[in-house]
Parts: sequence; C-alpha cells; structure tokens
Amino acid sequence: MTYPIAEFCADLGDVPHATDAMTIRKKSRDQFAVSPLLRQSLAGRVADVVASPRSKDDVLTIIKAAVKHRIPLTARGGGTANYGQSVPLQGGILLDMTGLSGIVSINEGNVRALSGTCMADIDVAAREKGWEMRIHPSTRSVSSIAGFVAGGSGGMGSCQWGMLRDRGNITAMEVVSVEAEPRFVELRGRDVELVHHAYGTNAIITEVEMPTTPAWTWKEVIVAFPEFLVASRFGVQLASEPAITKKLISLQEWPVARLMTALGDIVPDGHTMVNCMIAAPTMDAFKGLVDDFGGSIVHESLEGQGFYGAPIYEFAYGHGLRQIQKSQPTYTGLQGMFPAQDLLPTIERVHAAWGGTAPLRMEVFLSQGEVVTMGSPGIVYENEAQMAAIVAKLQSFGVKVANSHTTGVREVGIKQFDDRDAVFKRSMDPHKLLNPGKLDFDDIPASDSRSSLPTQGWSFRKAG
Amino acid sequence: MTYPIAEFCADLGDVPHATDAMTIRKKSRDQFAVSPLLRQSLAGRVADVVASPRSKDDVLTIIKAAVKHRIPLTARGGGTANYGQSVPLQGGILLDMTGLSGIVSINEGNVRALSGTCMADIDVAAREKGWEMRIHPSTRSVSSIAGFVAGGSGGMGSCQWGMLRDRGNITAMEVVSVEAEPRFVELRGRDVELVHHAYGTNAIITEVEMPTTPAWTWKEVIVAFPEFLVASRFGVQLASEPAITKKLISLQEWPVARLMTALGDIVPDGHTMVNCMIAAPTMDAFKGLVDDFGGSIVHESLEGQGFYGAPIYEFAYGHGLRQIQKSQPTYTGLQGMFPAQDLLPTIERVHAAWGGTAPLRMEVFLSQGEVVTMGSPGIVYENEAQMAAIVAKLQSFGVKVANSHTTGVREVGIKQFDDRDAVFKRSMDPHKLLNPGKLDFDDIPASDSRSSLPTQGWSFRKAG
Repeated sequence: MTYPIAEFCADLGDVPHATDAMTIRKKSRDQFAVSPLLRQSLAGRVADVVASPRSKDDVLTIIKAAVKHRIPLTARGGGTANYGQSVPLQGGILLDMTGLSGIVSINEGNVRALSGTCMADIDVAAREKGWEMRIHPSTRSVSSIAGFVAGGSGGMGSCQWGMLRDRGNITAMEVVSVEAEPRFVELRGRDVELVHHAYGTNAIITEVEMPTTPAWTWKEVIVAFPEFLVASRFGVQLASEPAITKKLISLQEWPVARLMTALGDIVPDGHTMVNCMIAAPTMDAFKGLVDDFGGSIVHESLEGQGFYGAPIYEFAYGHGLRQIQKSQPTYTGLQGMFPAQDLLPTIERVHAAWGGTAPLRMEVFLSQGEVVTMGSPGIVYENEAQMAAIVAKLQSFGVKVANSHTTGVREVGIKQFDDRDAVFKRSMDPHKLLNPGKLDFDDIPASDSRSSLPTQGWSFRKAG
Repeated sequence: MTYPIAEFCADLGDVPHATDAMTIRKKSRDQFAVSPLLRQSLAGRVADVVASPRSKDDVLTIIKAAVKHRIPLTARGGGTANYGQSVPLQGGILLDMTGLSGIVSINEGNVRALSGTCMADIDVAAREKGWEMRIHPSTRSVSSIAGFVAGGSGGMGSCQWGMLRDRGNITAMEVVSVEAEPRFVELRGRDVELVHHAYGTNAIITEVEMPTTPAWTWKEVIVAFPEFLVASRFGVQLASEPAITKKLISLQEWPVARLMTALGDIVPDGHTMVNCMIAAPTMDAFKGLVDDFGGSIVHESLEGQGFYGAPIYEFAYGHGLRQIQKSQPTYTGLQGMFPAQDLLPTIERVHAAWGGTAPLRMEVFLSQGEVVTMGSPGIVYENEAQMAAIVAKLQSFGVKVANSHTTGVREVGIKQFDDRDAVFKRSMDPHKLLNPGKLDFDDIPASDSRSSLPTQGWSFRKAG
C-alpha cells in the first residue's frame, strides 16, 4: 500500500522526520529477531517515514497530519520488544517517541514521566531522591516507560510486586486519541489496563505514572544447585519469603550456565543456576534459605558489578535468550505460565517429560499475589511444526502458553479483552490508523505475520 | 519461698534497685488483666526486689549476685504483654530493663538497639534517617524491643512482612547467660528463634537487631461492609495484593464498632469494620480494591490523627480487647489461627456456627508467606469451662488455638521446641533461675498459673 508521504511531511512543519533507508530500517525493527518465526514473518516490514516528536505539540501535529492523509501510525519507544510490537506491519508512519522525554514529577512512592523517557534515566532521577522503579524490564538501559507498559508484562521486581497488570503497578497514563482534533485522556486505576500491553493499538501514550519503592542497594547472586527440582523449590520458596526483598529469581537448568559464555565456568558442571537480585540488608536471611536448600553461592556482587560484564538481569527473561543465541543462534523458547495452583507438580511433570534433553529456563514471580513461574524448555529451533508440538506438550501438563512468536495482541494472549476495550478503541482510533495488523478488531484483520502456534494465552482468572 | 534479698542488694553496689511495695506491685504486673483467667491466677504474684540496670555492666553485676544467692531473675521491658510473660511467678528479682536503652546502629535496612529501648523511640530515630521498623506491636509507645521479641509474635506490619518468627524478621540478638561468670552470646539467623517468644526463660537479652523498611507516610482507614464474609474476603485479598503497601488489616464484626466507644457512630449500624493502615502512595490502588468489594471508606486520616484519639492499631489485636473492656469489662477472646489452607471456608464455618451471636474479631497477616487470620468470636467471660467449650468448638472447624490465658511458654503454644532449645537452656541458665514457672523443663515444673484450656497451639508446619 502506498501513502501520500510527501504531503504528510509537508504538513509536519519543523517536526523532525526522516525517510532515508537506514533510519527507516533501524527504527522499523525491534528485538523480534530473538524469535526464529518472527525473523521470517517480519522480514522487510518497514515504515515509509519516521517522525520524531520533541513535545506533545509535535505529537498533535503528527497525529493531525496522519489523520488528514489517513496514514497508519505506529508508536515506538526503545525498540526492545520481542514480539515485533512496534514493527509497522502496514508501513506508514513510525512515531519515534524517544524524544518526548523527561521526568514530570517524583513524589513519595510515585514517578511520572513523559512517555519516551528511558527507564534507566527514570531510575537515576528517582534514586537521587531515594526511590527506584518497582518493576523494570531487562532492557532498562534502552527501553522507554511507555514502551514498557505498552509492550511489556513484567520483569525485574515482579517477584516482589507482581506483574504490570496487577492492581497498583501502573498508576496512571495520559494518552491521546488519533482524530482530526486529538483529545488527551487521563487513565487511572484499572482503566490503565485498556492501554497496557495493547501495543499502541488504541491510543498514543504521552505520559506514564508508576509507583516507586525506596531504593535499595542490590546484590546480584548466582546460586548453584545439583538438582533442578531442588532449585525450583528454592526459587518458589524465595518468592514466598516476605522478609527477603528481591528483584529477580531466574532458574536456568544445566547446561544454560555454559551456553551463556559470559558466565565462564563459574557454575559447576551439571548444576542448575538460580540468578537472583537481593536487597543487601536481607542477604543474611537469603543465605540462610540457600543453606536450607543445599545451594552454593558461586557469585555475589553489587548490581552491575559482576565479572560477566552486564547486569545479571540481562541474563534473564527474553534477554537471556539473546545471551544464549550468541553461541547458539537458533536457540529459542516459549512463554509458558506455570500456574500457581499445582505449581511444583507442574514443574516436575514438565521436567520429567523432557528428562534433561532440553534445559528448563524460567523466572519466578507473582501474578495476582500468587507465586507462578514463566518459561519453557530451551528449544533448538527447527520449524513451526516442532514449536507447535512443544506448545501442545506443555499444555498437556497444565502450562498456559502465550505465543511469543506472533505480533497479534490477541494471539500473544497476555492482554485480556472485553467490551470496554472495544468502546475505547473505537473512541480513540476511529480511523483505525494505530499500529494496524496487531489487533484484529471490527473489520480490521490481523496481519498474516501471526503464527499458527496452538497457544491459548495466559489465563488471569483465578481458579475457584 | 523466701530469698536472701538483703544480701543480694548488698552485692549490687550502686546498681539502682527498689523493694518498696508500690514499685514492686507496679513492676510485677503486665497487661495480663486483659485475660479474666489470668486476672485470677496471677493475683498477688510479685517480685521481692526490682533491679534497674543502666548498663550491661549493671546487668552483669545483677546476674552475678543473683547466681551467688540463687535468686530467680525475671526480665521485663515495657510490661505490655498479655499473658503475664514477665510476671515473676516465684518472686525474686524483677529485672527492669527499660534503663538499658539506646540505639546501637542504624544502617540501610537494619537497626540495632539496647534491649530496653522503647519501640517508639527506635522508630523516631530510624525515621530521622528515612527508615522505620517493619513490624511493631500495638503497644509501640511503651514496649521495648527485647520485650517485643521475647514476648510477642507479630503485629503491625505482619500483613506485609510476616510474623516475627518468619525468616529474616529478627536479624540478631546479643544475650547473656546466668552463671557465676556470665557469657555474652551473639545469635544470628535462625538461632534467634531460641530466644524469640521464650519469655526470657533461657537468656537475658542485651541487644536486638531487626530489619527496617524505608519509612512511609501511613494512612489510617476504616472501611465498612454490610456483610462480614465480604469484609473477610476483602481483608484476605488485601493481604494478597503485593502492590498495596500495608501495615494493618483488622476485621471487626458488628457490633464491635459500637463496643469501642471512642469510634462513636462512624461505622453504620450492622456493619463490619476493617481497620487498615495503608502507605499513602498506594491509596489509589487500595480504594480501587475497596470499590471492587463494595466497601465504604468511613474514615481516613494520617497515622495517629484519627478522631478516636489513638493510633488505629491500638484498636487491633489484644489492644482492641482493652478498648472493648472499657465498656464491657468481662469481654475477652482467644488466639485462634485460621490456617492458610482452607482459610475462607474456615472463616465461613466459624461465622455460621456463631451466627452473629458473638462478633468475630481477627487480624489478617502472613505466616510463612501465606495469608492467615488470627482471632476468635468475642466472648463475654463466664468461666473457664465456657472458654474450654469455645476452644473445642473452634478446633472442630479447623482453627488452631493458642492459649492466651496461661503463662506457660509451651501451653501458649506459639514457640516451637526441639533439642536445640534444651541444650541452649541448660547452657545459658544452668541454675534454672530465669523466669521460673513459665517453662516446664527438665525437673522444673511449670507454675500452677497455667490454665487447663484444651488448646493445641499454633502449628507452623506447612501442610503437604
């Protein structure tokens, strides 16, 4: 499809924009290459123009011009998402929000920032006043706050505070509609769920307000266990210890410790590693727990000071896959949610089923106040049929699988939809210009970049 | 039994001590009068002399003289305990530790203080550096830190951090043995459990180190619910919301709100009140939860600023009984632990069994990382047989009942004992002088001030 890009650009006034091939290619992709399926399906999907607002006025100028010329508009932050959330499937305008950056306010337990503000910059500013973000992605050094809430679901801190979607973890958002006369709307309370994890398909975010927690001195700790199942029980128990303040619990079965070459041979042969971030004052209690489970602390350092050259959280979640892919380019995984009810037995069943042929990687965190784990056996990718078979096998053991190899909001299956979402989408994006192809809605089909893995998404309804 | 008190006093040098009747009577009792049973069994139990150390050297002088003359030694802090923990059942020396007071250190996430330091004073000192105690008793304004860990089990903050006995909630203690040559011993990690909730029967505490949390601005909130069971579900859910920072969840069925006359008629007729302390920055999320459960916020103020003339936590736990006893002197209750497994059904069964004839009072908190409640129906005391019948009835519904009407450590049933406790007791108190009568041990019988309620104590073993 071709759009009247020259006319659009002429209406931008002095708002920075670019149409050169290098900028367009760079800004049209995120970290989707971590998925071998998306690497194929998203190849060549690029914008026609990259617009870079410096202010909310610039955002309004861009929206008005986009509406006038009916050109799709896809917002992007740091570009660190793993599902192609901000890849402009139908071309058009790529809205690079990273210039709309700055702290709006830092108060007791709360920070508000312009949408493109880098998460790391927010933490630096908050720390100067004694605070830090409760939850941040493994890509903190690059990702933006709006990108995190629009494309993410949790991260560091989720083992203490829960997922982003859990009550109280996103305080408010200011968003703007895509209309001839754009409207600013302030969302608070549970209304933030309308926009959270919707990939920018129903509004453009201009400000985000999130809770903070008093800043701690964090320790990075690698604990080795000879038995994976003991390590799992340790990780689950750690998440259940209210008196130990933690930010990360990442379980990696042998031989993941070797596949991440930056870790050298710090983890003994055959051992599962549990990578943790623990508030320094609670290390005593943490070490007591390690002892009780027969673990060995093989590394301990201040945050970001590990010999492995990066913060430990860059070895967790999707970021961990990228570490492995440095030595094993076709390595991948799935986002399986091991539900709170029957958690350890489910882990045991999955572990037994793969019998050490594919190491389990999972993070432990809270969802709706209960301990869950998220992850899957590691997979050396062959083809989509192989992946589909693994999805089905995981499901047969009670694991809920989100599809991390598709760009469709519904197909990923982390955001829940109801009638309010439909009303909101129609109201905020009446011309259906926002990030088209990600959300099949009314007469808008989702893109063919969806994969056909037989996933069912994550259920957030509690049993019973 | 008579002791050589004059000889003991002669050996004290300049260590302050008193033998006048008024001092002795005042320092020989705690808040046991909240129990109608203890009011009878502890009547007239007084010390022969009150010794008031100003320093650790004074403590050593007192211990040496006590050992030399073989006189029982019972340590006491603020005297706020509810089971007669520091009542000197066999007379002898009452060791008033409140003069051994002062902060030793305040570091990131940790405070260490001399044993007699008042909890409120610690919080004042900690707040100046941005910290506060994680957990404090409802008697914070009077109680000492050592009294809290020696006689208490939890309190404000336990809905966030768990009980004192949960891993990491007491960092360390310095204790001293009762021997001719007393030894100081530093207990860390799980070793602190030897002395925690042992009523000073196995060591004299000289310093306590506890974790702190960054200080919040606290809101006191009273939420009214027309239905008790809805209020219960709300309270349990609140305890499960990691993103809401809280310090108190106290459920009080109608008509408790009227029995506490200081509350006036703020709570509508027939309503259960849930008294909460919520960190101000998380009030938005809290209010969302209240709305979801159909509650009404009938009062909100800063901590200690409520119209009812006292901090809201003085209306919770055992302290709440004292509020009721102002208008209903024979009102009492039991310490029933409603276990995490089957929590709401157990509450429903108990509620149905009493059918509104006796209002349920319970606090919601964490034990071993799981949500539990503690409390019982309110009881207008008649006699011990009546109490025993209520204990049995609660037990029949799955409630574990601790005996809050006895002075025996084992009979109360909150501290767990094993062989290490026996070794420790023999080592630290070889002459069996510490707080005799509270712990039946070797050939030391417990006092006849034990009641014969058929309680079984609180089990801290997890099911499964």
